[in-house]
Amino acid sequence: MTTTDYEAVPAVEADAAAPHLDTVVMKFGGTSVADPDKLKSVARRLVAARESGSRVVAVLSAMGSTTDDLLDLARRVSDRPEPRELDMLISVGERISCALAAMAIHDLGHEAISLTGSQAGIVTDRVHGKAKIVDVRARRIHEALDHDRIVLVAGFQGVSADSLDVTTLGRGGSDTTAVALAAALGAHVCEVYTDVDGVYSADPRLVPTARKLDVLSYEEMLEMASSGARVMATRSIEVARSQNVRLHVRSTFSDAEGTWIREEDGTMLEKALISGVMHQREETVYRVEGATPARLFDALATASVNVDTIVRTGAEVVFSAPVEDRADAARALDALGVEWSARDDLGKVALVGAGMKSHPGVAAKTFATLEAAGIEAPVVSTSPIKIACHIPTADVGRAVQALHEAFELE
Amino acid sequence: MTTTDYEAVPAVEADAAAPHLDTVVMKFGGTSVADPDKLKSVARRLVAARESGSRVVAVLSAMGSTTDDLLDLARRVSDRPEPRELDMLISVGERISCALAAMAIHDLGHEAISLTGSQAGIVTDRVHGKAKIVDVRARRIHEALDHDRIVLVAGFQGVSADSLDVTTLGRGGSDTTAVALAAALGAHVCEVYTDVDGVYSADPRLVPTARKLDVLSYEEMLEMASSGARVMATRSIEVARSQNVRLHVRSTFSDAEGTWIREEDGTMLEKALISGVMHQREETVYRVEGATPARLFDALATASVNVDTIVRTGAEVVFSAPVEDRADAARALDALGVEWSARDDLGKVALVGAGMKSHPGVAAKTFATLEAAGIEAPVVSTSPIKIACHIPTADVGRAVQALHEAFELE
Repeated sequence: MTTTDYEAVPAVEADAAAPHLDTVVMKFGGTSVADPDKLKSVARRLVAARESGSRVVAVLSAMGSTTDDLLDLARRVSDRPEPRELDMLISVGERISCALAAMAIHDLGHEAISLTGSQAGIVTDRVHGKAKIVDVRARRIHEALDHDRIVLVAGFQGVSADSLDVTTLGRGGSDTTAVALAAALGAHVCEVYTDVDGVYSADPRLVPTARKLDVLSYEEMLEMASSGARVMATRSIEVARSQNVRLHVRSTFSDAEGTWIREEDGTMLEKALISGVMHQREETVYRVEGATPARLFDALATASVNVDTIVRTGAEVVFSAPVEDRADAARALDALGVEWSARDDLGKVALVGAGMKSHPGVAAKTFATLEAAGIEAPVVSTSPIKIACHIPTADVGRAVQALHEAFELE
Repeated sequence: MTTTDYEAVPAVEADAAAPHLDTVVMKFGGTSVADPDKLKSVARRLVAARESGSRVVAVLSAMGSTTDDLLDLARRVSDRPEPRELDMLISVGERISCALAAMAIHDLGHEAISLTGSQAGIVTDRVHGKAKIVDVRARRIHEALDHDRIVLVAGFQGVSADSLDVTTLGRGGSDTTAVALAAALGAHVCEVYTDVDGVYSADPRLVPTARKLDVLSYEEMLEMASSGARVMATRSIEVARSQNVRLHVRSTFSDAEGTWIREEDGTMLEKALISGVMHQREETVYRVEGATPARLFDALATASVNVDTIVRTGAEVVFSAPVEDRADAARALDALGVEWSARDDLGKVALVGAGMKSHPGVAAKTFATLEAAGIEAPVVSTSPIKIACHIPTADVGRAVQALHEAFELE
């Protein structure tokens, strides 16, 4: 089960009632804008898209290590930085990228304008550091597009509806900004640029024979993202699914087609049983006794812990969550007064595929493959299109290779 | 004559009709917040002011070389960065300082909130890079002060009234932010913290016997600032004078009294003939023929050139302006189609003193002193409280020492 936050983004704004079929939202991550030369090459790509006739909205992340450098500054000033001020601080990174990209576009002879999350109308709640988008008020973007400008929007940030404070969206925030904008603007596609050329059947660094996938359903991409595929954040895929935003994950460094992510339809019926094997090297696994699941997961949600897998057998509840959420989870569990323990030595492998629904036996083959490799899986969970096994971190690489081979994904 | 921009700041806002006599605005420059340790020490000073009973508003500059680093990034992306985007870029430096200082204050057990120029209600015109403040809408500051918070305002920036774009105020922008806020909030004093402990009768590095001045009139400080005293920007003193904001220039690193700047009154009647000798190592001196002064200075104002001295003899107009404005001035003069030339080898010495008004002979003594030192002054200008001489840059040090001694300022 995935408890990814659903973000309530209105389908399309009133003033965008006639969808602009030629609008494209292009999202570039930190490695794509890491230095002035890379920024200039992003600018050239945006200009090329504009010259091909599209209305172009780009969402940029902060340059390379900018955000980490700012976090480091904060730590040198305070052991536990005030969340509102931390958001004020770390939101500057994306603004820097966008202002620089706009300058580079001007030099190429095109009009461009950079907008902060606030100026772009990304309205959020007040949960600093993990804010959720509650509305997109894209008036300024529409105006700029109507004036033939390329619009650069600072990703990962917004403004809180009531207090007008700068907020940040947390992990995968720029992806979420891009998808929410694509939905609000009625864009025909949200292109997600990354340093790989699409989504693969397994990590090519682990499995050299891994295959690039041409098309995936939202459900598959969701399961893959929550199982370790790092190309997009889970929450942003949730928004894409709920708003029916077509995604195209592709390479910053080539013009080749990447992986399309869209609604499952007729053309996908004969798709493969299994699309891919995802993995995650580390995830914290908690065991809790003495709390009802309702009370437990309410407390964890309040503490903004991104719970992934949940398994329950009798009085005990087992769940997993990202390593980064360890401190928040511990505080929430202590406050509940429950008995709990956590393991930090586990990772996860997951088989994902829409074709799995109609084929029993996938689970059996998965367990047999792991057993043959001598790998123990103390926690197992399934969904209609996924089987996930928590296994020792040390065995993750071998497990991915064995499963990729067993299911003939080459 | 000084053509420093006058900035129209309303005396006090409607919602601040009853002036808060206990409000203090404290401004810290880039060297005062250069690293996390210095920021923490600024935080301690702000907390001490709050604990002494004052409502505290602090205006911070960017940390050390932050703004220069950002400008360097811009230059690596574009030869001539778009002004709107440059403002978006370089305004982040002050936000970083303010967010970090707010964190440090929280750690000291006090409430604090950082505000961008826009959030603080600093409303400007649209001249990117050299914007002028047209209004201060201090609602959020009042609210925060009413909630017992220390308010940190990002200096040097605002938001344009019509386009809602981020603007920067140019040279001395943080000083202007501080003075405009002090006026709008009815603060009883605007404290300007710097790395020297006040205003001196001459630069102590040039004249070891230079004396710290206890009190100056706005007019004297204006003449001093436009003649090379670097403790405060001329335009900010203009605003202070027009709004009657009492200034206190003092050291970041001690609690000693610095120099007060306020309206001339009875207690200042018997003040010294000359308060100090200011200097500037470099200033560009232009000679122009073929334009009426009205047309000439209108064009220079439009090009945002900060004209300092103006001297006219017959058909020729001579004026000086900061070295940084060279390119803007050249463009404006070329566009006018006038004949012009410029000298880059001159600096300036200036004697300033309110007592000078009623004492003829100061000019004679000044020229005699320079002549005895063998220093030629090709351009001379005077005001009721100032005599300024443009002299070769190479002679500036000797001229300051000779004049300081001749007028017995030790």
